[in-house]
Amino acid sequence: MPTLVLVRHGQSEWNLQNRFTGWWDVDLTDKGVAEAQAAGDLMAEKGLDFDLTFTSLQTRAIRTLNIALYRMGRLWLPVEKDWRLNERHYGGLTGLDKAETAAKHGDEQVHIWRRSFDVPPPTMEAGSEFDLSADRRYAGIDIPQTESLKDTIARVLPYWEGRIAPELKAGKRVLISAHGNSLRALVKHLSNIPDEEITGLEIPTGQPIVYELDDDLTASDRYYLNEH
Amino acid sequence: MPTLVLVRHGQSEWNLQNRFTGWWDVDLTDKGVAEAQAAGDLMAEKGLDFDLTFTSLQTRAIRTLNIALYRMGRLWLPVEKDWRLNERHYGGLTGLDKAETAAKHGDEQVHIWRRSFDVPPPTMEAGSEFDLSADRRYAGIDIPQTESLKDTIARVLPYWEGRIAPELKAGKRVLISAHGNSLRALVKHLSNIPDEEITGLEIPTGQPIVYELDDDLTASDRYYLNEH
Repeated sequence: MPTLVLVRHGQSEWNLQNRFTGWWDVDLTDKGVAEAQAAGDLMAEKGLDFDLTFTSLQTRAIRTLNIALYRMGRLWLPVEKDWRLNERHYGGLTGLDKAETAAKHGDEQVHIWRRSFDVPPPTMEAGSEFDLSADRRYAGIDIPQTESLKDTIARVLPYWEGRIAPELKAGKRVLISAHGNSLRALVKHLSNIPDEEITGLEIPTGQPIVYELDDDLTASDRYYLNEH
Repeated sequence: MPTLVLVRHGQSEWNLQNRFTGWWDVDLTDKGVAEAQAAGDLMAEKGLDFDLTFTSLQTRAIRTLNIALYRMGRLWLPVEKDWRLNERHYGGLTGLDKAETAAKHGDEQVHIWRRSFDVPPPTMEAGSEFDLSADRRYAGIDIPQTESLKDTIARVLPYWEGRIAPELKAGKRVLISAHGNSLRALVKHLSNIPDEEITGLEIPTGQPIVYELDDDLTASDRYYLNEH
């Protein structure tokens, strides 16, 4: 039976400051590091093991993966990093404090940007300090100007189908360390969650989510490892 | 001009205890972690940057790489891990304290095992606690029973030729985090060092070694980054 575990990165500096982060590359906090350690310890204690791992191009997810693998004695596992597992791009909201954004645009508008399925935030202003077009990690990639969750799903799923699903079907055990919205994309797909529900599904930081999958990758069970 | 940087992992627990380590997977000491951090900081300060990285399947080298990349803001770079960059396999000496080994076998014999080019130590005894044949990281790999430096070179160089040299020739900047003897193999090859000299070449832990290479990968210069 294919095994898939998803883990959202530990607390980041901007999770703590309640700022929209998206593709901006903030680091883990000390608490985030501890969450990553605890995730690794829990997976080892529960006897989970892997053959392949996947993560984004963002420090907080890569570091969470590296820390968890280290705690499991599995640093030697292959790690594939891809931008398609990055967080949702928050466009012009990137870097903004959520309370300030609400004061500026109104609670209702912010709620729509955060919780609607297909309404993207405004694009980033030209010359924004959070513009990543000169970051060579994204060379050759058409960096989004902004993304709705629907847009995020539209670039996560081809990667899932192209790179991850074939490995699971070949019997590989897979660990994915990623972000709130790139993981929502996978959970929506695997658990067949409707558009209007997925935006409200909270994925906690540093909590391994286990999928038990049939051979055709239909989910027979999904649970938080710490509750199992 | 292709750039290649080699770094030997930071101090390991058995470097500190002066025990033969080889393929046994010991961790870094706190000093080793600090050495890896300093290596990353030095490379960033000197403006070195990379496109691809390579390391062994051993925790001490992988962790050194991850720590250095983290300090450089380059955790997102691809990392390829391969057993052919592992340390020389010390066979039956694995786990032994070097002074104890000398007391048992005589200084001269230990000197021969450590410093001869083509004399391997005795093979590991059956049932040794350091036997790795059940370690799934080496599944499908013909784990050596013991290795001379010559044997180590014989498995490092095909990996160099097959995986690393083509990337350098394509203009990629490469960082390799590995071990005293797998790096000796590369330095011997690149700097054309005779058999009888290479065994005496000490490669210090955590010191980036920079190679400036011509397009055909002939070395035009080799230096320690901290002395440059």
